[in-house]
Amino acid sequence: MEFKLLRIDLTEWRAKEEVLKDGIMRKYIGGRGLGAYLAMKEIPPHINPLSSENKIYILTGPLTGTGAFETGRYHVVGKSPLTGILGDSNSGGQFGPWLRFAGYDGIVVEGASDEPVWVSIVDGEVRFHPAKRLWGKGVVYTEKKIRAEMKTPSEHIGSVLAIGPAGENLSKIAAIMNDKYRAAGRTGLAAVLGYKKLKAIFVKGSRKIEMADKKKFHEESKKILKKIMEHPISDALGKFGTAVLVNIINAHGAFPTKNWTRGTFEKAFEISGEYLAEKYLVTNKGCWGCVIRCARVSKVDSGPFRTPVSEGPEYESIWAMGANTLIGDLKALIKLNYLANDLGFDTISLGNTMATLMELYEKAKKGELPEDKAKELLDLLEDIAPEWGDPHAFIQAIWRAAYRDGIGDLIAEGAKRLAEYFGSPDSAIHVRGLELPAYDPRGINSMALSYATSNRGGCHLRAYSVSFDVLGVPEKFDPLAIDKRKVELVKYQQDYFSVIDSLVLCKFNTFATDHTDYVEILKAVTGWDDLTADELLIAGERIYNLERLFAVREGHGYKDYLPKRLIEEPLPDGPAKGKTAKEALETYLPYYYELRGWVDGIPKKETLHRLGLEEFEHLGA
Amino acid sequence: MEFKLLRIDLTEWRAKEEVLKDGIMRKYIGGRGLGAYLAMKEIPPHINPLSSENKIYILTGPLTGTGAFETGRYHVVGKSPLTGILGDSNSGGQFGPWLRFAGYDGIVVEGASDEPVWVSIVDGEVRFHPAKRLWGKGVVYTEKKIRAEMKTPSEHIGSVLAIGPAGENLSKIAAIMNDKYRAAGRTGLAAVLGYKKLKAIFVKGSRKIEMADKKKFHEESKKILKKIMEHPISDALGKFGTAVLVNIINAHGAFPTKNWTRGTFEKAFEISGEYLAEKYLVTNKGCWGCVIRCARVSKVDSGPFRTPVSEGPEYESIWAMGANTLIGDLKALIKLNYLANDLGFDTISLGNTMATLMELYEKAKKGELPEDKAKELLDLLEDIAPEWGDPHAFIQAIWRAAYRDGIGDLIAEGAKRLAEYFGSPDSAIHVRGLELPAYDPRGINSMALSYATSNRGGCHLRAYSVSFDVLGVPEKFDPLAIDKRKVELVKYQQDYFSVIDSLVLCKFNTFATDHTDYVEILKAVTGWDDLTADELLIAGERIYNLERLFAVREGHGYKDYLPKRLIEEPLPDGPAKGKTAKEALETYLPYYYELRGWVDGIPKKETLHRLGLEEFEHLGA
Repeated sequence: MEFKLLRIDLTEWRAKEEVLKDGIMRKYIGGRGLGAYLAMKEIPPHINPLSSENKIYILTGPLTGTGAFETGRYHVVGKSPLTGILGDSNSGGQFGPWLRFAGYDGIVVEGASDEPVWVSIVDGEVRFHPAKRLWGKGVVYTEKKIRAEMKTPSEHIGSVLAIGPAGENLSKIAAIMNDKYRAAGRTGLAAVLGYKKLKAIFVKGSRKIEMADKKKFHEESKKILKKIMEHPISDALGKFGTAVLVNIINAHGAFPTKNWTRGTFEKAFEISGEYLAEKYLVTNKGCWGCVIRCARVSKVDSGPFRTPVSEGPEYESIWAMGANTLIGDLKALIKLNYLANDLGFDTISLGNTMATLMELYEKAKKGELPEDKAKELLDLLEDIAPEWGDPHAFIQAIWRAAYRDGIGDLIAEGAKRLAEYFGSPDSAIHVRGLELPAYDPRGINSMALSYATSNRGGCHLRAYSVSFDVLGVPEKFDPLAIDKRKVELVKYQQDYFSVIDSLVLCKFNTFATDHTDYVEILKAVTGWDDLTADELLIAGERIYNLERLFAVREGHGYKDYLPKRLIEEPLPDGPAKGKTAKEALETYLPYYYELRGWVDGIPKKETLHRLGLEEFEHLGA
Repeated sequence: MEFKLLRIDLTEWRAKEEVLKDGIMRKYIGGRGLGAYLAMKEIPPHINPLSSENKIYILTGPLTGTGAFETGRYHVVGKSPLTGILGDSNSGGQFGPWLRFAGYDGIVVEGASDEPVWVSIVDGEVRFHPAKRLWGKGVVYTEKKIRAEMKTPSEHIGSVLAIGPAGENLSKIAAIMNDKYRAAGRTGLAAVLGYKKLKAIFVKGSRKIEMADKKKFHEESKKILKKIMEHPISDALGKFGTAVLVNIINAHGAFPTKNWTRGTFEKAFEISGEYLAEKYLVTNKGCWGCVIRCARVSKVDSGPFRTPVSEGPEYESIWAMGANTLIGDLKALIKLNYLANDLGFDTISLGNTMATLMELYEKAKKGELPEDKAKELLDLLEDIAPEWGDPHAFIQAIWRAAYRDGIGDLIAEGAKRLAEYFGSPDSAIHVRGLELPAYDPRGINSMALSYATSNRGGCHLRAYSVSFDVLGVPEKFDPLAIDKRKVELVKYQQDYFSVIDSLVLCKFNTFATDHTDYVEILKAVTGWDDLTADELLIAGERIYNLERLFAVREGHGYKDYLPKRLIEEPLPDGPAKGKTAKEALETYLPYYYELRGWVDGIPKKETLHRLGLEEFEHLGA
């Protein structure tokens, strides 16, 4: 298989092609794996993520845009300004497929432009356009203007990736957006594009994706499609979207509420996917070529939170900006989600950061912050006054954060830096700087391990152990029981999901499939006729180890941990009342290291050898 | 008298002093008059107002900061990006006096900087500071940061003038702000500072203002002070602020409502100064050295429109953003006022522009705009949907306008350009591009002449004929009766107010005084011992004619006019029901030209000779 990269040099406004060879692709597959490898090779150690030396890899995988099933995504990789380690994020919509149709399997964004610029790629032709008129603009308007300029009004043709004011203004919690409402949200990579002054990329084209064996591909894709279609979770996702999880996770007492001080939210039903479907849903929608169609198209017709027909909100956004800040009005959350998307924020990080801010505000008023810091905070907050549950304060805060005005200058830095600045670091619930998502590991104890050992910081998408602890996939566990088999499953998911993110597929495939399901279809596409299921899973393990090595290289002596609150403060309510994540983490971590072949979080040299990572041996333990 | 100017060259980050001689000062007095003269001499004809060739004059007058009575203001002059003719605006607070104490009587801002910059002037020492970290920030935060850097936290010491994001982003309705909440709002001169990338000026110092005869000065100032203190309007302004006018003007049926389609607002009382005093007033406040103290300090404690303790809102802001858009909730108006100030908009222009937008939105939905324009507008408005009376839409629109996102890009251009763009020019109620203030000339017919002949476009501060048509100063007229004596009074006010703006004084002096009151005190300060009252009034007339010549020079063949709506559409309600402004304008204008010695709006050469404006004779008729 050949994999064609477009290297975009923003310093010189110049682009060149590069073809990656079969060997590298087979070792790292594509997407996330390929990005990790290229970043490791090309991004010098210890650079400032916000410098022209950083690079952003926007990558598809061998299955992207083949149209088989959930193949409509792309993956972004770079050094994260939020975490200081390798950052990556994945997004749906239709940008990934259209990038391939435009002639390239991936883009490497290099250097930095002096002035705002956007890039169009149409059937292999690359053009640089001054973007001064688009700088400062929201994502929705940016897409409109670019589509007008490219004479491509139909949203079914071509695709726009863009950053909003948040990314331009170097917010560390800014999201790379595409197709207006889709986000490669996590780890703040939009700030890197903002630093490089790349406002947007437009892609369109008619390239056909070559395959070694088209007939076999179609047969295999039908098999996978059938599995996905028949799975009940696929059906629930289509009906109620990801927010179908609100009631489920809340019922488990693992729905983080009021900045992770509680595990249940009394207004959960009113912000659930079921309620959304009843009240504000226009229709459901899928990414390019998708059959599950979990995306929501919603609107709020009138009132203070009037929102036009637009996509979302997702479960994570509803939780982070809702339960976690005590905002229980779904209309408000639809509005907040729209603004967060349009201005270009990661809703998980933004919601957590606002929850942290609300906690700091409360502490400042109660005299629980250092006196000078309390004074400074109250002074900065005089116009916003973020009381728990106040959506209007949140709306004003989003605007301030997008343009870094007043307190917004600190909100834009994310929860960790905000809380540290005001002398209350434990008010930020994060791992390695990445704000945690919507599952409390005190109520779903496998998530303790998933969060602590995630390579990009606190994240539910490295291992989604909710699937077995709550949803019963592949089998049902007791979420509160300590069970070492969970460690094996977490490791498996981490490796398997590395494969999925590299192929690049949607993780909602994985309720119905495992890694063995993708061997034959990958053969059909690539012609790697001797590929085995083991080789594929080992590639996943290789990628997982390589990502960890990036952090080791950056000098993060690798202690896997959880936020103090989750270790020391028992949940006060719900089915998990009285629980912390301490026992789970302490029990699981040693066994995990043993399974991984790691010492204190660092891969052993022999592990690296086993995985074919000899060239990075010097970073091993 | 010597008048010391500081010329700030932003291209080179360099400053130099220049002393103006007695002759020029006596001819043009200071402030507005001096600015008009310098602009006429120094700003080349036909330049783009948003270019480095434009200049901004920030000027005090001979009485500024003398502390006698209302001497706490300053005046700004430059070529207006909104109107294309001479723009000027006046502001209170404390910047004017502190500028003089800092060592200069005026500042000329020249050239343009490549990067954002702010300037500090402390006891004659001028420093240029990079302002990259302040760019994009609101006015409140900017002042805080600058005061912190200058180690001058007390708001009683020194003063900050700043532009907000609106000015940075070249909004033609952006205001130059000072002391956080004070605005030199009209004619969009903040955009010129934005173009020049001058974010702010800090002034502080201990210079004493020299006077020819201090003893006489004190005696004279006491006389004037007594007159002001004893006048009932001064008392009403102190108690209820400028918004004391809401009920009065509404009762006259001259309170423009729903974008000037009605003359009364059913919720007038709920947005009046009396209601404000009862519900949201914290205290009243004065500019530097003021005894009237008409400024409001207000707050909204909670709810969607929570606003911190801050200044305003004024009558004009309440009207423009309230009655004119059908927003009848004073809490919302306090919030809108706060945001407009912080982001740096002229509230009169902004409120009118939003009212125009609401009208266009309604027309688009009713099919009353050209089809393609309706489509474009509805597309741009999908996220804001500005229905009449919706404060939340307005809040979102302010943010969009400040950063020129989406429809905000057109709101930022002001009502005239917005309405023209969408094919409905008569939906913008303006004269020469400047949106009209809060008095309907169909209900107060002298205002027809005041608006039409105002030199900076539609404005109530060139001649405030409300004073005799409504308030009975100097005598009460019937506001609906055609009476040619009103023409004489309008002309007198225009000339007298030119003197007031040049001295630089507050116009609230003028209810209690006329031009003769200022002769002796001006002698005491300047030593112009042979000054007469006639000379002073002729200086005012000279200034008024000179401003008109600037417009003639720019090629505005000078037709004085009113918006079509006010000429052709009778008021449908209230005491002025059935009235238009047509008869008044047509009756008053010929007599006005006769009194002025003008032909079709252009001063005759002989008039210019009489006024000592021989050097501009070539522009005369």
